[in-house]
Amino acid sequence: MKIRHEIYDLAILGCGPAGLSSAINATIRNKKVIVIGSEICSPPLHKAQKVANYLGIPNESGGELLEKFMDHALSMNIEIINSKAEAINEVNGIYSILAGNELISTRTIIIATGVPYRSTLPREQFFLGKGLGYCATCDGPIYKGKDVVIIGHSHEAENEANFMAEICNKVYFLPIYKEPGKVDPKIEIVKSQPVRIIGEEYVEGLELEDGVIVKVDGLFVLGAETAPDRLIPGLEISDNHIRVNRNQETNLPGVYAAGDCTGPPYQIAKSVGEGQVAGLNASKFSTNS
Amino acid sequence: MKIRHEIYDLAILGCGPAGLSSAINATIRNKKVIVIGSEICSPPLHKAQKVANYLGIPNESGGELLEKFMDHALSMNIEIINSKAEAINEVNGIYSILAGNELISTRTIIIATGVPYRSTLPREQFFLGKGLGYCATCDGPIYKGKDVVIIGHSHEAENEANFMAEICNKVYFLPIYKEPGKVDPKIEIVKSQPVRIIGEEYVEGLELEDGVIVKVDGLFVLGAETAPDRLIPGLEISDNHIRVNRNQETNLPGVYAAGDCTGPPYQIAKSVGEGQVAGLNASKFSTNS
Repeated sequence: MKIRHEIYDLAILGCGPAGLSSAINATIRNKKVIVIGSEICSPPLHKAQKVANYLGIPNESGGELLEKFMDHALSMNIEIINSKAEAINEVNGIYSILAGNELISTRTIIIATGVPYRSTLPREQFFLGKGLGYCATCDGPIYKGKDVVIIGHSHEAENEANFMAEICNKVYFLPIYKEPGKVDPKIEIVKSQPVRIIGEEYVEGLELEDGVIVKVDGLFVLGAETAPDRLIPGLEISDNHIRVNRNQETNLPGVYAAGDCTGPPYQIAKSVGEGQVAGLNASKFSTNS
Repeated sequence: MKIRHEIYDLAILGCGPAGLSSAINATIRNKKVIVIGSEICSPPLHKAQKVANYLGIPNESGGELLEKFMDHALSMNIEIINSKAEAINEVNGIYSILAGNELISTRTIIIATGVPYRSTLPREQFFLGKGLGYCATCDGPIYKGKDVVIIGHSHEAENEANFMAEICNKVYFLPIYKEPGKVDPKIEIVKSQPVRIIGEEYVEGLELEDGVIVKVDGLFVLGAETAPDRLIPGLEISDNHIRVNRNQETNLPGVYAAGDCTGPPYQIAKSVGEGQVAGLNASKFSTNS
């Protein structure tokens, strides 16, 4: 575990349009900013063939736009790390963010993590904490010497699967994204779609599309965006999105949200605008705190 | 008076970042859109030497950005007229907008008129309708054969001053903007700053910085942006700005607002984002109405 001893004014979760807009606006206000992003900053935008409604840049692909956005942020020497916030807690007005193997301290947070993850399996929420988990490094040790199945939503899940392979008896890995990379040869790759969780009170297995049931003690859903209210306990959610007011304030002091995670329309200009408002208001808050 | 007989889906007041963003988004939704703008679409942005915080376009002057924005809108063949809304009323869900000498009918309106005009003279609001007016073509005829003083906020005031020169006995014109153009030679140009309105119940004159009192029957403040709640009766204002929710809806059905007129921060990305949300929601409303 690496601990960053300096306290940031602002930590931004997400490097899509909302996150980067927050970052440039707070940086212009001379704030110490860190962006905790992932490899692809906005998967939905990355896939857009053509974007015509971001005023001033009439006709580029989503990928080209993202590159322009990233170039803008990098031209201001903004610190961007490729990592993912896994847990956040607050003591005396300072938030500690566990991201990968780092601990980051900050006065304010902007959540800009994009379209929120929705449970995809029936009764997924019921089994949460009853054999189902979203963080291997957090809950993994419970399954030492046992069998688990991992549903991987992105390449990020591979590292976590490898971590589990070291401590578990047997790891099944079910990648539901394109072109999965290599994992520990001890891991058994499953090429099917998950259909439902087997079990009464606790997870006992996972039924697949082809009818096969994988019998396990634990099920992990990894590499998907962590639901914000699991990340920051007490964060108010409304209709699966983070509840914010017109200042982009959430119900928690010093915690702001911007972009798709605050609700539709899922559009770039809306995200960039909200990112700006969040960035300016977080800057003001960090000065006064 | 020219009456446009077709009914627009959306009329946008203002051609700054919020107005143009609304326009491109509604046009992409195949809506029939008209933008009622002025010669300089966003005077504060037009003056900005450098803008660094509009994500994706890192380093241009305000003027260059405005040009990019306008080019984007024109590339979509959006109809933009150089005029100003002076009065709006609603019958059976259709709004009629009096703009210059045209009457425009529309299902929805987006107000994107920028930083709201603030009364600058003491007791200005008190004298409104008691010898003080904001629209020459509306109230002018009352002053036929009488003396009036006009405080001009922009070049737009010159046409109105010329109109008054035709009907009044004497017109004093006090331009408080840079490089005023030529007006009717019958008009007496006053080169001083206004200090206070003279009168008890009605306007009797205007006191100037140099101590001179111009005795008149009427006072007009022209070429400034019309306060939105004077434009649309019943529009809810909060702290001098149009009250909107996160959908950019005002308290009136089919009427949206975006950008500086909804409150600070007075920033481009915020305006463009709000314009997008207003444009998309107005499009939806016009489809259902």
